[in-house]
Amino acid sequence: MPTKAKSIRRTLADLIRQVWEENLRLKASGLVTMTWGNVSGIDRRRGIVVIKPSGMDYTALRPADMVLTNLDGRRLESARMPSTDLPTHLVLYREFAEIGGVVHTHSTYATAFAQACRSLPCLGTTHADYCYGAVPVTEIMRSSAIREHYEANTGRMIVKKIRRLRLQPGCRLQPMACPFIFVANHAPFAWGATPAAAVENAIVLEAISKMALLTFLLDSPRRSLRRSLGGRRTGISQALLDKHYLRKHGRSAYYGQTQAG
Amino acid sequence: MPTKAKSIRRTLADLIRQVWEENLRLKASGLVTMTWGNVSGIDRRRGIVVIKPSGMDYTALRPADMVLTNLDGRRLESARMPSTDLPTHLVLYREFAEIGGVVHTHSTYATAFAQACRSLPCLGTTHADYCYGAVPVTEIMRSSAIREHYEANTGRMIVKKIRRLRLQPGCRLQPMACPFIFVANHAPFAWGATPAAAVENAIVLEAISKMALLTFLLDSPRRSLRRSLGGRRTGISQALLDKHYLRKHGRSAYYGQTQAG
Amino acid sequence: MPTKAKSIRRTLADLIRQVWEENLRLKASGLVTMTWGNVSGIDRRRGIVVIKPSGMDYTALRPADMVLTNLDGRRLESARMPSTDLPTHLVLYREFAEIGGVVHTHSTYATAFAQACRSLPCLGTTHADYCYGAVPVTEIMRSSAIREHYEANTGRMIVKKIRRLRLQPGCRLQPMACPFIFVANHAPFAWGATPAAAVENAIVLEAISKMALLTFLLDSPRRSLRRSLGGRRTGISQALLDKHYLRKHGRSAYYGQTQAG
Amino acid sequence: MPTKAKSIRRTLADLIRQVWEENLRLKASGLVTMTWGNVSGIDRRRGIVVIKPSGMDYTALRPADMVLTNLDGRRLESARMPSTDLPTHLVLYREFAEIGGVVHTHSTYATAFAQACRSLPCLGTTHADYCYGAVPVTEIMRSSAIREHYEANTGRMIVKKIRRLRLQPGCRLQPMACPFIFVANHAPFAWGATPAAAVENAIVLEAISKMALLTFLLDSPRRSLRRSLGGRRTGISQALLDKHYLRKHGRSAYYGQTQAG
Repeated sequence: MPTKAKSIRRTLADLIRQVWEENLRLKASGLVTMTWGNVSGIDRRRGIVVIKPSGMDYTALRPADMVLTNLDGRRLESARMPSTDLPTHLVLYREFAEIGGVVHTHSTYATAFAQACRSLPCLGTTHADYCYGAVPVTEIMRSSAIREHYEANTGRMIVKKIRRLRLQPGCRLQPMACPFIFVANHAPFAWGATPAAAVENAIVLEAISKMALLTFLLDSPRRSLRRSLGGRRTGISQALLDKHYLRKHGRSAYYGQTQAG
Repeated sequence: MPTKAKSIRRTLADLIRQVWEENLRLKASGLVTMTWGNVSGIDRRRGIVVIKPSGMDYTALRPADMVLTNLDGRRLESARMPSTDLPTHLVLYREFAEIGGVVHTHSTYATAFAQACRSLPCLGTTHADYCYGAVPVTEIMRSSAIREHYEANTGRMIVKKIRRLRLQPGCRLQPMACPFIFVANHAPFAWGATPAAAVENAIVLEAISKMALLTFLLDSPRRSLRRSLGGRRTGISQALLDKHYLRKHGRSAYYGQTQAG
Repeated sequence: MPTKAKSIRRTLADLIRQVWEENLRLKASGLVTMTWGNVSGIDRRRGIVVIKPSGMDYTALRPADMVLTNLDGRRLESARMPSTDLPTHLVLYREFAEIGGVVHTHSTYATAFAQACRSLPCLGTTHADYCYGAVPVTEIMRSSAIREHYEANTGRMIVKKIRRLRLQPGCRLQPMACPFIFVANHAPFAWGATPAAAVENAIVLEAISKMALLTFLLDSPRRSLRRSLGGRRTGISQALLDKHYLRKHGRSAYYGQTQAG
Repeated sequence: MPTKAKSIRRTLADLIRQVWEENLRLKASGLVTMTWGNVSGIDRRRGIVVIKPSGMDYTALRPADMVLTNLDGRRLESARMPSTDLPTHLVLYREFAEIGGVVHTHSTYATAFAQACRSLPCLGTTHADYCYGAVPVTEIMRSSAIREHYEANTGRMIVKKIRRLRLQPGCRLQPMACPFIFVANHAPFAWGATPAAAVENAIVLEAISKMALLTFLLDSPRRSLRRSLGGRRTGISQALLDKHYLRKHGRSAYYGQTQAG
């Protein structure tokens, strides 16, 4: 390995280790069957993305296996091939400056929503604590978009949907107010300020997807006829959504240990 | 830390350790994703409540992190911020003198009932062993109650519902005859004579919620049309409810090792 | 402890250890929440039943805690109170001479069938490998039978149902050809030639109950209207039931390592 | 053991160890309750199949317990009886020269599809990554086929169904383009180029079966009336199926670490 490359890996050692650890944590969380998941992180100053190698077993994974690329996807002295989903990650990094980590999984319940091409209305405060409104589902891809630049087009369809979210004043910026999405016929993507935050959001999405599916099952037949048909079950009140989302993420948040005592 | 404060912590060392252990047990029981759960306990003689700090990871939690407050929520020399749900716990302690521990979780199946705003009729003896009748769900909160004193109002809506339970003579007092509730659009709360008993009740509620949802799925279409519509599935007979609840909790209980041999 | 009693415990040391181990295995198998499960075994020659003590945590359980009784339920120098379900176990031992072990659990999916008061038709070969036909559900108990001798009456209702099973020539005797049942509004009981066999049957019942519930969900609406209404979904063919049950339990069984090579 | 037999076992030591390890991995993966699963492998040059012994507990299993047979099922100096499913494995090995390993399980969700006699349309890319089209279900067996040579007939019905798959040019050969099937009223079989690949396919089938069942539940009533009745829910577009299947298994695959960098 040439001296310059070695020095990039050395400079980014912390991020590389972080991305490696978060890939292992994702596996340990139970969200990943086989190798169906990947975590990436970015060094914004240098414009370098670190991502899991393609198709490698998590138990064999070492920090040295992590793949480095620039924002155009050019590999930087990495022996491994990057995850095939790299172009999706790159679109998200290029479009949303706030994002520091991206996660893709095929976690069971979130994937069921993606396969049903169904968005997830905010049905409770667990959801409202993390996401300001419904979890959207992307449009179904046209054949032409599938045949050429499929993975990048997946990213573009995510961005298109997220850009359209209507937010409240005082709320965080768009990609953070809804830090996950279902890709139609495929599976979820999640993101966050750091790789660790992105993994947490992926875990949250799986949990609220399961809770929502069970809630649908509990809707009595009459109610479900009224609410579910045509997707008109709209979820909790605006006041409750505001309360929970903003007490954690708003200007005067009072959840956690960071606010003034 | 001033001498007086140190002595409060020392005097309550047992309760503090108990609350800390029960928070860890709650996490280990599988009821808690992320940090979505908290346990508190009370020293009735001194009027001091011990509760989990807000948003802290369970693996990092030490007894010294537990937060002490009086019944008005004033912190007693605690470095950490208390769980944001503290005001809900405090209302329950103030209203129900029998309660020694309170638990809040977002456990999956119980949260599905809460999100569906649906009470849980007593469908079997597992339920009847712990709860004398249906598990109630609170009314949906009005926007004004959400905007101001939201967490305390959550407690008030729980109390309102529990106070209305109709009990049998010979049965335990109200908050104990139904030691849990679903908060509409939110998640469950459970309580008990001690923090350990409250955690057990939270585990029981999750188990009977899962069993009930599966029971609903097994109701044949015709039966479910007859029973579920309008919520008319009423559950087991009064005789069976009496038998199971009272053989554990009635005056002549004969379950467990404590009765006369 | 008087000398004679000591000698009974010593004589039955193997059975006591077996029952103790099977109680622990039952807990480890994931079928038991809290203390909701118990295993017993019998020494037929001496007419002594060994059973788990009532309401005791499994982690604290020692062989010395196991309770010994005769077939009328009289305790034999045991410090602990027996499981409250003892009278149900005793009825089964008295009625079915082939039974050497009995298990009661509130395992989730089997309890859902019990709560739905629904029998389980044989939907596949997993079921047919262990049970010759549908898993029955007991009749709903009358209030008078609940109020007096409830636990013994539970046993009687199990026996009544099992006695009525129609079997094929060449098939094992009744209580073994269907080694489990759902008690309506309550939970399952299972039995076998030994405590270990009874625990295995309890594990099998939970597994086939889950598979069956999922199968019902997969029945398309039209099929489910035709089959489930009135319980007319009848399951697999008689030929397949015979093949699977008899290749394991019939006169010319060829499953496992015990047959002639 | 005669010298020649010893030398066969010694020559096949690698395959024997592989098959033994994959049986243990299958158990560890959570797909197997009790002893309901078996893995086999084949040495094509010598025409010898290695398979799990019948009804043996996985914890007790040693490489020496693995049973060796030729392609007609004649045991080669093995002390144990082979899995009763051996004739099914043998038919698959005889019919499909590409297969190097076969797995049979009663994994919960895949078995539910088998019991519902329902095929699994390709609902998402998780499925498309492994299987080119729907997972088929075999025809329901006639009584005569059950009574005589039941296990071999099971294999023949699998082959019949797999032979009829319509594939795309550029796609892998038939048994690999759909490496699993549901046997009606029974449970799944899976296969692959090696025993390890067969086990992976069995794990994949269980995962996509669960995702599909949840997807069906999420289909709104109106959609499900339109799609599920008569099985007309057809799944993802041909373009998406081609993209995902062929990027992993086609001539110009670019998933994993094996392609040109």
